[in-house]
Amino acid sequence: MLNELGVIRISTQERALMENLERLSLNSGSHSPSLATMQQALPEIHIDIDACFLSNPLATELFWTYFNTDVLNDQQLFKRMLEAYPSQNRVIAERLSSTIGVEPGRVFIANGATEAIQAVIHNFSSHIHINIPTFSPYYEFAGPDHRITRFRVDSGNDFVLDPGRYVHSVLGSGADTAVLISPNNPDGYLIPDADLKWILARLSGLRTIIVDESFIHFADRAVPGPGGSGNGLPTLVGLTEQFDNVTVIKSMSKDFGIAGIRAGYAIMKKSRVDQLLDHGYLWNSSGIAEYFFSLFTRPAFLSEYREVLDTYRGYIDRFTSMTSGVNFVRAYPTSANFQLMRVPEGVSADLVTTLLLVRHGIYVRACGDKIGLDGEFIRVAIRTEPENKLVFAALKDVLG
Amino acid sequence: MLNELGVIRISTQERALMENLERLSLNSGSHSPSLATMQQALPEIHIDIDACFLSNPLATELFWTYFNTDVLNDQQLFKRMLEAYPSQNRVIAERLSSTIGVEPGRVFIANGATEAIQAVIHNFSSHIHINIPTFSPYYEFAGPDHRITRFRVDSGNDFVLDPGRYVHSVLGSGADTAVLISPNNPDGYLIPDADLKWILARLSGLRTIIVDESFIHFADRAVPGPGGSGNGLPTLVGLTEQFDNVTVIKSMSKDFGIAGIRAGYAIMKKSRVDQLLDHGYLWNSSGIAEYFFSLFTRPAFLSEYREVLDTYRGYIDRFTSMTSGVNFVRAYPTSANFQLMRVPEGVSADLVTTLLLVRHGIYVRACGDKIGLDGEFIRVAIRTEPENKLVFAALKDVLG
Repeated sequence: MLNELGVIRISTQERALMENLERLSLNSGSHSPSLATMQQALPEIHIDIDACFLSNPLATELFWTYFNTDVLNDQQLFKRMLEAYPSQNRVIAERLSSTIGVEPGRVFIANGATEAIQAVIHNFSSHIHINIPTFSPYYEFAGPDHRITRFRVDSGNDFVLDPGRYVHSVLGSGADTAVLISPNNPDGYLIPDADLKWILARLSGLRTIIVDESFIHFADRAVPGPGGSGNGLPTLVGLTEQFDNVTVIKSMSKDFGIAGIRAGYAIMKKSRVDQLLDHGYLWNSSGIAEYFFSLFTRPAFLSEYREVLDTYRGYIDRFTSMTSGVNFVRAYPTSANFQLMRVPEGVSADLVTTLLLVRHGIYVRACGDKIGLDGEFIRVAIRTEPENKLVFAALKDVLG
Repeated sequence: MLNELGVIRISTQERALMENLERLSLNSGSHSPSLATMQQALPEIHIDIDACFLSNPLATELFWTYFNTDVLNDQQLFKRMLEAYPSQNRVIAERLSSTIGVEPGRVFIANGATEAIQAVIHNFSSHIHINIPTFSPYYEFAGPDHRITRFRVDSGNDFVLDPGRYVHSVLGSGADTAVLISPNNPDGYLIPDADLKWILARLSGLRTIIVDESFIHFADRAVPGPGGSGNGLPTLVGLTEQFDNVTVIKSMSKDFGIAGIRAGYAIMKKSRVDQLLDHGYLWNSSGIAEYFFSLFTRPAFLSEYREVLDTYRGYIDRFTSMTSGVNFVRAYPTSANFQLMRVPEGVSADLVTTLLLVRHGIYVRACGDKIGLDGEFIRVAIRTEPENKLVFAALKDVLG
């Protein structure tokens, strides 16, 4: 604390706020408090830019346009969407099938990717080998009967996953389940296709391998990925055909900007989808989620989505170009729509977060609660172009 | 078939449609195909009245009015509701707590009651004793490792649950879990408070007893039920304080008319809620479900809801008075918003369902797939007053 104060001067008020923020974060477990929760608890803070929230804002606008035309303009239809039972899981899977290039029996529709993570971990896993840092539900959702072991990816090596060391670690752990997020959250590292296939070929004896592709649309990949799909978007679902222990999990929240709708899916072998759907998950999509899934199958929407995705990827590129050359923070290369940054020696991530908030109205994610991050890190979400510029200027102001 | 044709004359066209309907029902498992699915598959059918759908239509209108004022009039708020992550499970539970009269740590917020049923059965149950007939998820959601045993409630005795015989059956079965739905679906029988307490006191050695009160608002009960709650609505949640193996499950779909939103909850002991929430169900409510839950805590809304509930109960009373005296169908007494009816000897429920649909545009539930119903039954949902009159007239026309 003293050390920090030596580097950056803060007022008594700022220090008090920092303590309040820390308390709030503690109460939210390993997930950052939402904007709404935060503004309710600390009304004196005014947040202008939510750079904690990993979501393509242009895609939200696109969804909103379609939703207005299709649903809000037809009040009877919308009322019916809220009143009536949505379709059953298998009916929605059937509709999605050709768009994602997978036969319907292998599609598990989920109430957000977190439900798919939960279903797979609770049903097809007993000892999970996770990479750290990682997305916390992969270990939090494990029950008291689960074992968790870890493989550390090294910030010193830009969080690159070494395939040989990784396979050695998994096999040595005795785990029946491995989790690979690509691009990884929170560091943004994308596992190259060749590495991924090499790894999966060596782990074919495992019961379950989760490949989480929730951020893959943001990766700059020339090809749609192994197997490809019907919609021209990057995906790893083809891997589930080559390796029958692989489950690909996909959140729709980040790329389509619709976290409040709760929509995601998982692709796995048919016998597993059957096992899940024979014993639950009957009506787990809401009427609006069902609308979103049907929108996702429409060529006109997908074509416009690919355009806004390209524009947003441009924002990502320009932001990461700005941060790559600076000396006041160490910004890691990323293939996702966020960037992990290491703050200078002697400065705490919590302090940086507080000052960005108080002095600039910018909310970023302090990563102090992320297991496996030695040192002080913040994760900055990439938003719209003007917002990204303000975020960069604020980082420079606070740390420069 | 021949026998049926002897009693009621049907055309070749009607017979073909009947076969198509049977095929459609078979594909929907033990749940009736939704109106949308049905109209897509059989566009020649025009459905005017959905008397299969168990939902208070007046409550939907009330919700819609509030939703218009609060949400549709504030487009930025609504867009944010679809874009942003909803609050975590525990945050919503905290808000709901005082309205339902239960401390927050014992509230499990669910993505519809079916998710709560699934969670309880998968986590706190291995051998389930069900009453037949029952709501099918109670046995369908049981996994391959579960055992299921049955207690039959008798149509000859108006589906009355005999407490002594029931307790004897449960204890004799060796089950660790019992399920009581009150009012029961599909027969509408409400277990009297004294019987329910007598039963629970004798089953205190069981690991889990589910008391499903999804239809309890429709029951004509003078008091809010054992324990009561803060909102003046009938409920059995007080039982969870007296009996710590009891879980009360509540769907919000039926009474509030919002099945498309997916909202429900379960009340159980704190250690069980902790066990569930420590390992999943993190963001299982959508933004709109979160709005609905907050609406449910508002006194003004609750007061208006109680009014529309009273009006709707009047509809139920008038419909059941009409059906009670007739000789063309045997209509069982009900405490729910539907009525089970036995069609005359020699007539099939499927035929009656088809004729109601083709000749009158009325969709009712044929109960041929309901385990435990010997004979031919239909379940008729109670809708608005004019619709109920048309349904009665149609029944009379087809069967009279």
